[in-house]
Amino acid sequence: MIIDVKLGENSYEIVVERNCIDKASELINLDRKVLVVTDSGVPEEYSKKVASQCKSPYIVCIQQGEKSKNFDNYKLLLETMLKNEFTRTDAVVAVGGGVVGDLSGFVASTYMRGVDFYNIPTTVLSQVDSSVGGKTAIDFGSYKNTVGSFYQPKKVLVDLETLKTLPERQISNGLTESVKISMTSDKELFDIFENGKIEENLDKIIIRSIELKRDVVEEDEKETGLRKVLNFGHTIGHAIESCFENSEMYHGECVSVGMIPMCDEKIRERLKNVLKSLSLPTEVLFDTDKVCENVKHDKKFDGNQITVIKVNEIGSFVMEKISKEEMIDMINNLKGGEEK
Amino acid sequence: MIIDVKLGENSYEIVVERNCIDKASELINLDRKVLVVTDSGVPEEYSKKVASQCKSPYIVCIQQGEKSKNFDNYKLLLETMLKNEFTRTDAVVAVGGGVVGDLSGFVASTYMRGVDFYNIPTTVLSQVDSSVGGKTAIDFGSYKNTVGSFYQPKKVLVDLETLKTLPERQISNGLTESVKISMTSDKELFDIFENGKIEENLDKIIIRSIELKRDVVEEDEKETGLRKVLNFGHTIGHAIESCFENSEMYHGECVSVGMIPMCDEKIRERLKNVLKSLSLPTEVLFDTDKVCENVKHDKKFDGNQITVIKVNEIGSFVMEKISKEEMIDMINNLKGGEEK
Repeated sequence: MIIDVKLGENSYEIVVERNCIDKASELINLDRKVLVVTDSGVPEEYSKKVASQCKSPYIVCIQQGEKSKNFDNYKLLLETMLKNEFTRTDAVVAVGGGVVGDLSGFVASTYMRGVDFYNIPTTVLSQVDSSVGGKTAIDFGSYKNTVGSFYQPKKVLVDLETLKTLPERQISNGLTESVKISMTSDKELFDIFENGKIEENLDKIIIRSIELKRDVVEEDEKETGLRKVLNFGHTIGHAIESCFENSEMYHGECVSVGMIPMCDEKIRERLKNVLKSLSLPTEVLFDTDKVCENVKHDKKFDGNQITVIKVNEIGSFVMEKISKEEMIDMINNLKGGEEK
Repeated sequence: MIIDVKLGENSYEIVVERNCIDKASELINLDRKVLVVTDSGVPEEYSKKVASQCKSPYIVCIQQGEKSKNFDNYKLLLETMLKNEFTRTDAVVAVGGGVVGDLSGFVASTYMRGVDFYNIPTTVLSQVDSSVGGKTAIDFGSYKNTVGSFYQPKKVLVDLETLKTLPERQISNGLTESVKISMTSDKELFDIFENGKIEENLDKIIIRSIELKRDVVEEDEKETGLRKVLNFGHTIGHAIESCFENSEMYHGECVSVGMIPMCDEKIRERLKNVLKSLSLPTEVLFDTDKVCENVKHDKKFDGNQITVIKVNEIGSFVMEKISKEEMIDMINNLKGGEEK
């Protein structure tokens, strides 16, 4: 199926189809120089399949992990294109998860002021989340995504068959973003999670999640308003994530915990049950002091206040200003075994 | 006066007014953190004047010259913003010539995926050329402007009073771009040059040049078609420019020579006379071999062919495909003293 993302002259299609990687050259123009970017955690067969369909492919495989979203890799990819005399009419294709997509999207957006970018996300997280919205970035300094651009891909190919090789923990990691958007925006999607038939509904869940994010992005491409809803669970989530040097806790796992205090007590247990059914954490199993310290440096704080997304009823949300002290109370309440 | 640049949601105003730097805070929102970028060749008073009107100014002065448009300065500016906790609602202001504008525009377009950018060009070249069009870039590898973005400023302030401190050679350097656009697009503007009353018409020339470029950019923001007209004289111009390590010949001086073979013989003398009246060169006074070598590597070559802009009648242009051999003949004919 095809999901249209309507953003004026930046509009594009997301093709969701099993084995669509095998016919990539029918769906996107690979009859030119193509930089194929992948990472060491992605089965090599995917990037090779794409490269085999390109007229002049150049594969670059970066190290798996968030640490690869750095200036050195940004320059490495630009250099590879320069050395091989890529022009403005050539292209970049990302084959892998969010790290590969964010990094190579930024390269594509800035090489010669922008060349065609195609995204082939091969994880649940990148299929439901980073394949929609055109956010590209690298990390710089001690923060994530400090340098980047809004740059929409020309097309996205979501091959659900690639999830067969994905570890279960990575599937749950990605589904957190689906649970998240169901909480703020779609009760029916939440029902699917609550009914527990997740595996047999995986395709449906992914497609619905993409559509829901698409609806948000279409309304607010540059994150000036509505798009903030996508941050549900992410303020505390990011503060937890920053406690780890090497992604010991995955992004989705951190967001999983971060959603708990942001939803009303009367629905909290239902959310927890869904997260537990996905083997996702619902509490902080280490000292919360570091999390509190990290949250204080969140760049969304405006003085002592920060706007967060809260869910009082499943399928809808409110924006609310809370103080640093309230935020810290919330985090301390997440301490494993001591929760009130 | 105000020149409107209409580019949909990227529209902005160019304010052309003597001493408008003195009231910058009335024209643009400086009530926040502002990175003021300037270079060692720009009189310090201009950046200081702007900074004195900002709530929280941070001035960075880079070394004068094209070599400063590099990755190190790009990172330096990003680091300065990070260290001082700039958020998405803060701003970058460029005070200087094209180097400062290109570099800081690229920083503004990528810091946190884009913050407000204001350009205050203080040279003729940057006022008539780089202040319009939203091209930002740094140089990487051996080519110019290899990494960058299309990113429109929020507003441009053209203070014609700043030209009083500009050396005459720099004024002529900038006026080359005005002569260029008059050749392809406006006979009346060319008449002003031909009548020789340049100094007393400087304001008029600059305003008309901005308007002409504005018209082109409005039609073709991302350089997919019409905008190529702006390359008149630039193919050979860039090949000459690349012969020099340290900008011994200015950009405009190289373009001046580069225009000669691209216009029909019957108007060539008229163009030469105008250029000479501006003390601009019309021939290559050194070995042309290096120029021929450089032009062969022009990234606009498609196999053995390149599309160039030619002027047969003043005020209009044609696009024409020529071969490498024809191009090399043209360059050899530019050799000083040996011209046929």
